[in-house]
Amino acid sequence: MLWSYLSLVVAFIAMCVAAYFYKWVQNLPVAEGKIAGIGQLVRNGAFTFLKREYRILAVFVSIAAVVILLVYPSPIWQSENPLSNVIAVAAYISGSLLSALAGYIGISIATIANVRSASAAKQGLAPAYMAGFRGGAVMGMAVVSTALAGAALLHILTDDPNMVIAFSFGASSLALFAKAGGGIFTKTADIAADLIGKVELGIPEDDPRNPAVIADNVGDNVGDVAGMGADLFDSQIASIAAALVVAAPLGQIEVIFCFGALGLLASIIGVLFARVGKDGDPGKALNGGTLLTCGIYLVLTFIATMLSKGSINIRVWGATILGMAVGVIIGFTSDFFTGDDKKPVEKVAEACKSGPAFTILSGFSYGLVSILPSIIGIGVAALGAYKLCEPLGPGYPMFGISIAAIGMLSIVGMIISNDAYGPIVDNARGLAEMGGLGDDVLETTDKLDAAGNTAKAITKGFAIGAAGLTVIALLGAFQEIVESVTGEIISFNLMDPLVFFGTLVGAAIPAVFSAMLMLGVNRNSQKMVEEIHRQFDTIEGLKEGKEGVMPEYDKCIDIATIGSIKELIPAGLTTIIITLVVGFIGGVRAVGGFLAGNIVTGLFLALLMSNAGGLWDNAKKYIEAGHFGGKGSDAHKAAVIGDTVGDPFKDTAGPSINTQITVVSLVASIAASLFALFSLF
Amino acid sequence: MLWSYLSLVVAFIAMCVAAYFYKWVQNLPVAEGKIAGIGQLVRNGAFTFLKREYRILAVFVSIAAVVILLVYPSPIWQSENPLSNVIAVAAYISGSLLSALAGYIGISIATIANVRSASAAKQGLAPAYMAGFRGGAVMGMAVVSTALAGAALLHILTDDPNMVIAFSFGASSLALFAKAGGGIFTKTADIAADLIGKVELGIPEDDPRNPAVIADNVGDNVGDVAGMGADLFDSQIASIAAALVVAAPLGQIEVIFCFGALGLLASIIGVLFARVGKDGDPGKALNGGTLLTCGIYLVLTFIATMLSKGSINIRVWGATILGMAVGVIIGFTSDFFTGDDKKPVEKVAEACKSGPAFTILSGFSYGLVSILPSIIGIGVAALGAYKLCEPLGPGYPMFGISIAAIGMLSIVGMIISNDAYGPIVDNARGLAEMGGLGDDVLETTDKLDAAGNTAKAITKGFAIGAAGLTVIALLGAFQEIVESVTGEIISFNLMDPLVFFGTLVGAAIPAVFSAMLMLGVNRNSQKMVEEIHRQFDTIEGLKEGKEGVMPEYDKCIDIATIGSIKELIPAGLTTIIITLVVGFIGGVRAVGGFLAGNIVTGLFLALLMSNAGGLWDNAKKYIEAGHFGGKGSDAHKAAVIGDTVGDPFKDTAGPSINTQITVVSLVASIAASLFALFSLF
Repeated sequence: MLWSYLSLVVAFIAMCVAAYFYKWVQNLPVAEGKIAGIGQLVRNGAFTFLKREYRILAVFVSIAAVVILLVYPSPIWQSENPLSNVIAVAAYISGSLLSALAGYIGISIATIANVRSASAAKQGLAPAYMAGFRGGAVMGMAVVSTALAGAALLHILTDDPNMVIAFSFGASSLALFAKAGGGIFTKTADIAADLIGKVELGIPEDDPRNPAVIADNVGDNVGDVAGMGADLFDSQIASIAAALVVAAPLGQIEVIFCFGALGLLASIIGVLFARVGKDGDPGKALNGGTLLTCGIYLVLTFIATMLSKGSINIRVWGATILGMAVGVIIGFTSDFFTGDDKKPVEKVAEACKSGPAFTILSGFSYGLVSILPSIIGIGVAALGAYKLCEPLGPGYPMFGISIAAIGMLSIVGMIISNDAYGPIVDNARGLAEMGGLGDDVLETTDKLDAAGNTAKAITKGFAIGAAGLTVIALLGAFQEIVESVTGEIISFNLMDPLVFFGTLVGAAIPAVFSAMLMLGVNRNSQKMVEEIHRQFDTIEGLKEGKEGVMPEYDKCIDIATIGSIKELIPAGLTTIIITLVVGFIGGVRAVGGFLAGNIVTGLFLALLMSNAGGLWDNAKKYIEAGHFGGKGSDAHKAAVIGDTVGDPFKDTAGPSINTQITVVSLVASIAASLFALFSLF
Repeated sequence: MLWSYLSLVVAFIAMCVAAYFYKWVQNLPVAEGKIAGIGQLVRNGAFTFLKREYRILAVFVSIAAVVILLVYPSPIWQSENPLSNVIAVAAYISGSLLSALAGYIGISIATIANVRSASAAKQGLAPAYMAGFRGGAVMGMAVVSTALAGAALLHILTDDPNMVIAFSFGASSLALFAKAGGGIFTKTADIAADLIGKVELGIPEDDPRNPAVIADNVGDNVGDVAGMGADLFDSQIASIAAALVVAAPLGQIEVIFCFGALGLLASIIGVLFARVGKDGDPGKALNGGTLLTCGIYLVLTFIATMLSKGSINIRVWGATILGMAVGVIIGFTSDFFTGDDKKPVEKVAEACKSGPAFTILSGFSYGLVSILPSIIGIGVAALGAYKLCEPLGPGYPMFGISIAAIGMLSIVGMIISNDAYGPIVDNARGLAEMGGLGDDVLETTDKLDAAGNTAKAITKGFAIGAAGLTVIALLGAFQEIVESVTGEIISFNLMDPLVFFGTLVGAAIPAVFSAMLMLGVNRNSQKMVEEIHRQFDTIEGLKEGKEGVMPEYDKCIDIATIGSIKELIPAGLTTIIITLVVGFIGGVRAVGGFLAGNIVTGLFLALLMSNAGGLWDNAKKYIEAGHFGGKGSDAHKAAVIGDTVGDPFKDTAGPSINTQITVVSLVASIAASLFALFSLF
């Protein structure tokens, strides 16, 4: 159990780094003037939302805990060891609590770092970058260390992979709602603020007169920081859980903790060394850090494999590196389709000249094309890892796939740091504007923001790819669990009508789920638009920006909070309930097909939406940089429409699908014994 | 072989009905004035396109014929009976010739019927309806009778289902290009005409000053009539071919021809009795005809089953009726999501008030939701048919699915009649406008056109559902062929990495294919817009509508023709080539997964695009009918943008995917023996 304990040690180091960065960021000076007050408004808004959301989710978690007590790992009325059901509940609750904690820490540091980054921008790019990046790194280190430590601890205490599945389900059921809720919140506010501000009134982004502007900044935190953290926390644990289930019969568990610990160590080193020169390019710094981390991981795991004297097979090492390499490739593919110095963005920007319909059609088409390389990458990783490990004996091929997923997620500490950097500097830009820090500062924060967008394209590609491999491994875990429950060999043959039926239904789930989220954004942002109109009509002097007149920011925050909490429950529950219905009707084979169908169209839609959304966003920025008529031209208006469509694509629906497919896979594993006992067919 | 011969008889009767209707429509009077001349322009344009397209496709067919000669049904260098390769080539060429003929007949009657329908509109709704409907019925009867007769004849002459597969491949490879090419043509012209006419100049639809207006009307014929005819011709033959392959080992071939012949008979009766009262509702007449045909089919097949003294099992009858019933349900689901008296259209129209981004987001979201019921319907039909026929013994479950597909396509004669009616009356409207037949006539043709749109939603749902079941049956046929080639039992287990890899790649194909078509439309319509600008700038008096000044219509027709022929080849070839690459790399198991993945996302995208497109179209019409500000309001402008996005969704990409999935399935069957011989894994 050496590596399980070493995982705890590395996780502890990462926590120390997180704490150090937290203090470091906190001690940075805050600029004088309004900015501290505005920052406080954002922070309060974010915590208010978080508290209300968690209160609702506590109800869900309690109900789920009772269900788990009754049925997992086996129905309690049949169980020889009812204590394991109790432990499973404890694991489940810990998973959800840690996920909630990750969101909490993320919000906490992000709403400190945004003010500091804006303030530091007065001194130049490098200090502002460091404030943003180290703020993000707090999140990265905290998330990955708790995930790894939790899994290792559970393994040490129980030596039962089923408990890690329960732990993972706790994390991902919370992530599902956090991601969906945060995603609806952020885009509700963003779209409403943009529609009124940029389109109707022609006032700048983040103008303090706009009643939705604080809500918009709150949204960056609850959607992009807390939601994203919960998402990657969830992916990471799920990949470990799936690998443990598959590895247990092979006695290969230590490999997982070895690679996991070394990945975190690589991320720690990468994060500590990441910096940007005085006039350097922050985008390059972010991506350079990612590649550096990959290199360190490659070297460390190779050394570990060599030193293991055969207990880690070189083929297994190959599988994890293959996973990591494909993750990088997918990331850079996303970058090709969404980067503003690449052909697709230029083409879409050009199409804007012919009007918004062409903006939509061309962006959507390139989004469709972008699916192919990524999905082939995931397929190649899975196939390659399988074939690499096939000579090691039965059971190893699926273990290879799960190790490839671990490899893709190995550098997740770095990925989260980069990803959380984005909303922090985005917020810093807003605070600089609202706090009146001047044009020089705005220029600096704009540069930081742009780098965040590029890094985001890559990290999102990574997250989707990792989720893809993880759920393939989870499909293997599901099969493993079913076989251990029923004692029969099971296969998911596509010519079996139950499997095919499941595949078809599973394929429709991501569509319905994302549609529900987007319709939720639609409904809420229209409500918020009405509220903004009301404020401009009734608050005297607001439109004119009269000294001392303030909009009622909290009304808008309220609308976004209430609306998103109302919408997230039905979307999340629908997917869980349909999974259960398919299982109780079609049995385990239908569920196997269901998971596969869900993975396939889930990846399809997630890639389409993330990439098309990123493409539209950057096409707009490309035009704003002076191409095809620049700001205010007809092409720009068309591009703004594309960007508005892309917003819920890339920040609400697209990334939530990741979590949706993980949750469905885990629900299937948790309920596997029930499906085997009770089903219509 | 009684029913094979009876199929020939029924097909002959249908051909007589088609000939009778053709004469009947031709003998209707043509209104005086410009209309005959304009009609001639449209007719000439359509035939010019068709000839050029067929010339290119002849090259493709010749190359494919050589390949088939070499490898199908088995590699000629290994074959004991090389003659069967020669017969396969003959079958392949017949299939493509008949498909081309179907397109030719369709264009021929449609460009006669459009003028007659417009002229008859002077006398009122009923005669104009009859001209349009009977024109459509010529197409319906011709297509189905040649398909059935071809399959029956091939069966009588060769008694080898492999030959019908070759025949089917001929039909569907031509259909792939015809559908894609026609789809690009029609939307290139439609979008360009609308952009310049409605948006830039504010002149009415079909204004004769618009240089693209004839091309637009030509497009209705080559896209919606010829393309759609080729598509359903292809689905029908493919369903018969798949059923024959599966039925042959069971000795159940006669059932297929029995149900096929009775379906055509039911369609003949339905078509002969369809009419509308003097002030009746043409939409109801179309849908009433569909339901009547279903009823007749149900009764006829039940009687035949009873009289068969057990040679047709009642469970098999149940499967065909189940297929038909689910077809109707899918059709009406599409109607719910796209009908302008239903909630989704109203909601999308309302969202238009908040701007085009909300139009797109809400329409897209409802499109996503609309996938669920249809895809569950297809799943239920497949599962139900399988389970119904399972007690009959091994091999019967898949036979049940193929018979359900036959059931869903049984009434295809009626469906095509309804579907071809649409573009004919749409054209009639255009001719009435250009020929200056007056407002009363326009009002009548508008009503006919609206009914066509509603009927189209239902027939499209039907076509997609039928394609879905057909390709599931084709997957069964592929398995059957592989097993007969290799002599081994094969299964497509999702946990087999080759199958999973195939599934992932297959899932990406419909995305790339439809993106290529849409980008083609984008490129071409921008070219046409430039040409229209050039004409308005250089032809004096054109804009003002000076007497005697005519735009150069043929220039626009040329752009659409050349552009669509250039674009259709790469899109079609890409899908075929990727299928072959997957087969030669991953072998037959990868191809099995590939087909399944392709089916799943193919249905997903086809349903999404068809329904979202229909929804946007009707939301625009709903606003034009005076809601939410009516014509010219901001909501209307937003709705026009939605409609423009929806055009290539619903008329280019969406319906082409049907054919794409069929072609890929048939390519797999044709090349199965090669994949079994040569593959990397």
